[in-house]
Amino acid sequence: MRLYATIRFLISIKFVNKPANLSCLNFFRYQAFSGGAYCKQKYDQKTQWGKNKQHRKVQLKIYYDTMADPKNEEILAPLRASVKEQGDLVRQLKASGAPDLDVKKAVAELKTRKKILEDKELSLTPSYTFDRAKMEDLLKRRFFFDQSFAIYGGITGQFDFGPMGCAFKANLLQVWRQFFVLEEQMLEVDCSILTPEPVLKASGHVDRFADLMVKDIKTGECFRLDHLIKAHLEKIAADKKTSNETKEECSDIVVKLDGMNKAEMAAVMKKFDMKSPLTGNELTEPIEFNLMFGTQIGPSGLIKGFLRPETAQGIFVNFKRLLEFNQGKLPFAAAQIGNAFRNEISPRSGLIRVREFTMAEIEHFCDPSDKSHPKFEQVKKVELLLYSACNQMDGKPAERKTIGEAVSTGLVANETLGYFMARIQTFMVKCGVDPARLRFRQHMANEMAHYACDCWDAECLTSYGWIECVGCADRSAYDLTQHTRATGVRLAAEKKLDQPKVIDVVEAAPNKGTLGKTFKKDAKAVTDALASLSLNDIEDLEKKLASDGNYQLSAGDQSFSLTNDHVAVKKYQKTVHVEEIIPSVIEPSFGVGRVMYAIFEHNFKQRENDEQRTYLSLPATVAPLKCSVLPLSSNAEFIPYIKELSANLTKVDVSHKVDDSSGSIGRRYARTDEIAIPYGITIDFDTLKEPSSVTLRERDSMNQIRIPLSEIATVVHNLAYSKQSWSEIEKKYPKFEQQESKGN
Amino acid sequence: MRLYATIRFLISIKFVNKPANLSCLNFFRYQAFSGGAYCKQKYDQKTQWGKNKQHRKVQLKIYYDTMADPKNEEILAPLRASVKEQGDLVRQLKASGAPDLDVKKAVAELKTRKKILEDKELSLTPSYTFDRAKMEDLLKRRFFFDQSFAIYGGITGQFDFGPMGCAFKANLLQVWRQFFVLEEQMLEVDCSILTPEPVLKASGHVDRFADLMVKDIKTGECFRLDHLIKAHLEKIAADKKTSNETKEECSDIVVKLDGMNKAEMAAVMKKFDMKSPLTGNELTEPIEFNLMFGTQIGPSGLIKGFLRPETAQGIFVNFKRLLEFNQGKLPFAAAQIGNAFRNEISPRSGLIRVREFTMAEIEHFCDPSDKSHPKFEQVKKVELLLYSACNQMDGKPAERKTIGEAVSTGLVANETLGYFMARIQTFMVKCGVDPARLRFRQHMANEMAHYACDCWDAECLTSYGWIECVGCADRSAYDLTQHTRATGVRLAAEKKLDQPKVIDVVEAAPNKGTLGKTFKKDAKAVTDALASLSLNDIEDLEKKLASDGNYQLSAGDQSFSLTNDHVAVKKYQKTVHVEEIIPSVIEPSFGVGRVMYAIFEHNFKQRENDEQRTYLSLPATVAPLKCSVLPLSSNAEFIPYIKELSANLTKVDVSHKVDDSSGSIGRRYARTDEIAIPYGITIDFDTLKEPSSVTLRERDSMNQIRIPLSEIATVVHNLAYSKQSWSEIEKKYPKFEQQESKGN
Repeated sequence: MRLYATIRFLISIKFVNKPANLSCLNFFRYQAFSGGAYCKQKYDQKTQWGKNKQHRKVQLKIYYDTMADPKNEEILAPLRASVKEQGDLVRQLKASGAPDLDVKKAVAELKTRKKILEDKELSLTPSYTFDRAKMEDLLKRRFFFDQSFAIYGGITGQFDFGPMGCAFKANLLQVWRQFFVLEEQMLEVDCSILTPEPVLKASGHVDRFADLMVKDIKTGECFRLDHLIKAHLEKIAADKKTSNETKEECSDIVVKLDGMNKAEMAAVMKKFDMKSPLTGNELTEPIEFNLMFGTQIGPSGLIKGFLRPETAQGIFVNFKRLLEFNQGKLPFAAAQIGNAFRNEISPRSGLIRVREFTMAEIEHFCDPSDKSHPKFEQVKKVELLLYSACNQMDGKPAERKTIGEAVSTGLVANETLGYFMARIQTFMVKCGVDPARLRFRQHMANEMAHYACDCWDAECLTSYGWIECVGCADRSAYDLTQHTRATGVRLAAEKKLDQPKVIDVVEAAPNKGTLGKTFKKDAKAVTDALASLSLNDIEDLEKKLASDGNYQLSAGDQSFSLTNDHVAVKKYQKTVHVEEIIPSVIEPSFGVGRVMYAIFEHNFKQRENDEQRTYLSLPATVAPLKCSVLPLSSNAEFIPYIKELSANLTKVDVSHKVDDSSGSIGRRYARTDEIAIPYGITIDFDTLKEPSSVTLRERDSMNQIRIPLSEIATVVHNLAYSKQSWSEIEKKYPKFEQQESKGN
Repeated sequence: MRLYATIRFLISIKFVNKPANLSCLNFFRYQAFSGGAYCKQKYDQKTQWGKNKQHRKVQLKIYYDTMADPKNEEILAPLRASVKEQGDLVRQLKASGAPDLDVKKAVAELKTRKKILEDKELSLTPSYTFDRAKMEDLLKRRFFFDQSFAIYGGITGQFDFGPMGCAFKANLLQVWRQFFVLEEQMLEVDCSILTPEPVLKASGHVDRFADLMVKDIKTGECFRLDHLIKAHLEKIAADKKTSNETKEECSDIVVKLDGMNKAEMAAVMKKFDMKSPLTGNELTEPIEFNLMFGTQIGPSGLIKGFLRPETAQGIFVNFKRLLEFNQGKLPFAAAQIGNAFRNEISPRSGLIRVREFTMAEIEHFCDPSDKSHPKFEQVKKVELLLYSACNQMDGKPAERKTIGEAVSTGLVANETLGYFMARIQTFMVKCGVDPARLRFRQHMANEMAHYACDCWDAECLTSYGWIECVGCADRSAYDLTQHTRATGVRLAAEKKLDQPKVIDVVEAAPNKGTLGKTFKKDAKAVTDALASLSLNDIEDLEKKLASDGNYQLSAGDQSFSLTNDHVAVKKYQKTVHVEEIIPSVIEPSFGVGRVMYAIFEHNFKQRENDEQRTYLSLPATVAPLKCSVLPLSSNAEFIPYIKELSANLTKVDVSHKVDDSSGSIGRRYARTDEIAIPYGITIDFDTLKEPSSVTLRERDSMNQIRIPLSEIATVVHNLAYSKQSWSEIEKKYPKFEQQESKGN
């Protein structure tokens, strides 16, 4: 297989920066690119595992905002000052209308200083040992997820969810649907993945969802251009033999890189004679690499299509129907859960940067002049950890505030955005995210989409640092406007005016008779062109007719000479009862894989005094299975009880797993702990006695109670569906004292 | 936009036959192809609707197998005899080992006769008027689904599900998951859509999932070759001027077409000088058109990938992990719900032939020598309408039998297949399929995959005829074997032998010392090649060494000369306790869109005496919303009751819609009937009196009862989740007599 021989040489290159020029789209697009790798290797668990060794013993530092220590603040003070100094410089440059490149340079420096500050903050906060390799071992061994097509060598950036991962994901999405769609009565849709080019042209993805890369002319290997240049120049600058002048030039270019265009970068490449860092071969000219997967729809090869890079566009193109479904009324929200695709150059970091991922997106359409939310009252006391753009520029830490305060002070732009932020937090915590490791980071002006008013990312702290899991942006009217322009279909809503309004109408009224005589078959084109004149055009027309008695009207490629016989400018007043508005869109957008990953990390635990005994403390509501059924031994007398119990649990919708394998009860508890099963029912010899009873064990506390067989299914149902808490149940039934270690 | 100008000329061509040469894969692949169409047109509901006019007033004939009338049987008798005659001929040809082409010709004739018989059967059975246009109007108007990207002119074969369609689909899948995955404790997985080429090469899709087409050399328009030839020759044959000899030749070719290869078809095209039927332009040579959407994974353009054409392969490539998850034990079943893609040349028939669709597939892995099912007892009395291959060949109708009888007589190959068939029927009926319009049709030998032992399609009778909705096939060990071959990873299970077995071992034992001396660095290749010799090869080796003292061993491209010094043939006996088996796979495979479509048709109703009042009688379990909340008028006193009721319904997971619009109560009932809401709660002036009560209306009977406000949420919950029936509820509460027509 020659293909494999070639691609075996492909090595993934590490690139860490965000593609800042792409940040105008949405949070998910910040995924870094790097070189793709696909290698054929024998299916071998050990080899697969080997890849993870580099992550062993990663120390995760937990950031407790509330634990700011005066001593630490002393250490951090100069760093904070340094950020603030640069932040002020950026503000000043912007205020004085300084050249774009100067602003960009200052922003790049600001980012560097912020990074140093944040790294130091993390290093000073209380830490505990998180062993990522151990967690990955568990997730892989118990098949929560694994690389897709592993027996074929795998594809980077693609993952298959096994039974436990799939059930966790299905439960998470079910909770999401319940929490957002049903509770808020959103309009859920399910749109096509294959999207024809014109749709993504209008949304900006065809032109802007791309990055510059260069290829090794011999091996075809790809490098992201800015990262290649950065690495090359940093290497030169680090060389002792390099002159100070050159060093300075290099670091100057690195700072400016973010703002350079294709030609400028190509010139830098040429000047420094850059070659492939891996082979030394020549490189191609810079190529725009679009991150969308392209394909052809239909057999003709004429209809170009892409796999959607986000689910949002499916909602926007259906706006008219959805508004109609909502009987023309604003506000309303539409939602969609579905897969999206990005052809990352080098995906990595497990579930965090992938080529195929599930998104859950909400598009809340509202009147741009009224972004209040009827249910804001209900959430306004919810406290969030907010890392404002201002604090980021001032070198200050994130602050805990109620969303009510944040909205009333204008920190968060409006109630609707604030409402969703509070709801996102409640949802995340309900599903297992540690609230101490969740913050909302506001986009700084330079990273926000040009059309967005405000944007906050819900970020989770993981061993990869703070990762964006949910974006929450006010997209204003951008998307609906773009699709209106591209199709001519007005994606707008009608707003009833409080009082009828008298408006001045100015129109170019055609004289159809003379137009027809003069222009014959072109007459329609002329009247159409007149109808689409802007107010300015009409004023111009009026002036020209008055001064020259003549006006040149453009209609497509043609031009027509009009006189006062053909057209008259009419001005009159009209009473209107409605006005047309293009709704604003508030968009909470969930990266489901990222949320899942954060939940895995926040719930991966080791038993005290037994590091090898690891488990996942997922909340029952999202746990893959709610309960295990364990006969104490393979005694045949237990079998009818297992069958009856299993049937009863099925009847009350409790997913469960019978483990009648030969291991000791302790070993089997450990196995069920690994797959996050919150409750375990054991059938023992007391079960055989009348009245039958079983033991029930809770995963996190490992406490056990004894409970009548007749009540167990209902009790577990109530626990699994949060109708009763474990502490309530524990009070009600006698404790079962036998330690599970005895069975071990 | 030149693109649009070109494609505006594309017109879809109607092709009706199944691509018989593709039938080896699975049921969904039988989709017919035809010419693709994509046209840019102004978004205009009327234009969109115009497309459906051709379907207006389609008469649907309902097939009641139980109603065989002696008079009808008289009419059908000669047709039945004609089918049987041909069926016998096919059997005889096969038995006598006749040439393949003769068998194919006879089978084609058999199919024609079957078609005539079945059409006549349908025309004789009791019929009722089904107005497809009316149903499509309803589904579109209330946005159950619609063409994707409609404002951009739409793409044929792609649909977006609106709020009601999406909720129906989500509920259907939730029931599926409950009914199959949870109840049977299947291992559900969620695998990647983007699939690298080697995987689909192994599965046979790269080479065989294709069809021949030709293109108009000027317009690029595509035609499926066999359909083009058929249409062309039938036109010639229908021409009065054509000689009898030519007519005969034409019909002879048409019959043989199914069995022709590319060169033969090209020759026919040439002989009859075929041109594009639309433009008269020349056509290209036949081209193999693969139905998979291709793309490139990663930026290098070197890794070819496809959008998966079925979800099954994701399960097969994960077999080893799944078996491990199941602690090495057989049988077990894995399941997957997900999207798959087929680049149909001309998709049509609404949801039935599409390019992007959701599948729900189960792969049940079992011991090939034991396909019994532990729960078969529970289903064996379930009656199915079975249309056996034998009856199809004999011209006999489908017969109603219990699955127990069908399995015990060998009609259905094994218990596991039978178990799933019964479960499929129960599921379908639970979700709204009319049992009188559901049958299981067995594949005839010539349409069954070469690796399958038995295959039954669950077909639903719709206005498009009987459509396959669920395939249920015994795929034997085909897929696991193919992936084992391609990867070298043995996808097999170990089976414990009842008793240890003594086996004869014959092996070619290398003498590593001399091999190393003679072949140096090639020694390993030689030992590897020796290890992979088959039993026959070893016998050959033994003979050659004995006779010539020398054996030529092939290893890759090389050949090595071995002597008795290098290798010896050893024979000995070994006691084994397990044997390795490649499991058989029983595959129930649901086309979710097709099932949804059948349910729509089977539940589309018109009110007696008011044809304009149409509604969907979906079962509550899959209905998009369970209940409506309708205040009798806009009286402000009703508002607190609406809010309280809505909150209470949300608490008990009852999805609902508040309709406080100004229409009369009757009009609003009609609107909620259209979107299949099974229960309607009305808040009226009696609600304001203590103790508060409301009315509850059932959609299908339109009966109403009066019920205390405090009990309503629980009652609707019980109804929606099938915990109580409407007739039980109706008995318990007083009837509410006010006719809704009064409110109209």
